[in-house]
Amino acid sequence: MVDILHRVGVVTPSPEKVYDALTTVDGLSAWWTEDTRGGGEVGGVLEFRFPPVGGFDMEVVEVEPAERVVWRVVDGPEEWIGTTIDWRLRQDGDYTIVLFAHAGWSEPVEFMHHCSTKWGSYLLSLKSFVETGSGAPAPRDVQISDWH
Amino acid sequence: MVDILHRVGVVTPSPEKVYDALTTVDGLSAWWTEDTRGGGEVGGVLEFRFPPVGGFDMEVVEVEPAERVVWRVVDGPEEWIGTTIDWRLRQDGDYTIVLFAHAGWSEPVEFMHHCSTKWGSYLLSLKSFVETGSGAPAPRDVQISDWH
Repeated sequence: MVDILHRVGVVTPSPEKVYDALTTVDGLSAWWTEDTRGGGEVGGVLEFRFPPVGGFDMEVVEVEPAERVVWRVVDGPEEWIGTTIDWRLRQDGDYTIVLFAHAGWSEPVEFMHHCSTKWGSYLLSLKSFVETGSGAPAPRDVQISDWH
Repeated sequence: MVDILHRVGVVTPSPEKVYDALTTVDGLSAWWTEDTRGGGEVGGVLEFRFPPVGGFDMEVVEVEPAERVVWRVVDGPEEWIGTTIDWRLRQDGDYTIVLFAHAGWSEPVEFMHHCSTKWGSYLLSLKSFVETGSGAPAPRDVQISDWH
């Protein structure tokens, strides 16, 4: 099993805004994909779409306000199904530190390399959204390759 | 052992420019850090510095023109020493595909999360440098957190 790991620091006085950006449809659609639906409460399913390529359905398996969010991928590309997305938040001075893991990939396939870079880019979109009010969600996301 | 993986696609007609950006001091200093010295041939040591924090010394252990570059970290932060940086290039239509691995971390420490995001950002700097002539090397790099 192999994992994608990332860390960013968001300039904001407390983790609340980052937490909201991970648990509400309005927040998620402002930095990851504009086509986001569903519910961010435990047991809910969040539906992220990236037309025309497809998307992901995530079951929310854990939320601790302002501290942690965990999703399990229940539909999407074969390599993603059963993997987990784990967000940990903590405040360090002027920064909310975001520790991210997309865990449980069975093999380090080329698509995993792509998703790693793409997640990093989206985390910078999350940081920008919380700090400035403006992110770069799909379809206005940063193109990193032929795979978008 | 855990690895950082990334993939970007650079719009360029052949891998030569990306290869040069990984094997010459002029190229490396245009996307990673302006303070780069040393030699990019096999057996040479490349010295990357990020004032005032420190830097990395990389021994060049393999080069295959326009296909592959491998470095081994011989000096730098404790977590980096002995790890390898592996670059694989191939042409897919209008894109040079760059598969990147920073392999051999002993533990998925928080610093590894940071380096993963930072590598992703630097790979986009490499892409920008080859495509437009302008990258974002240190000290003009994208700040992602309190750790820079």
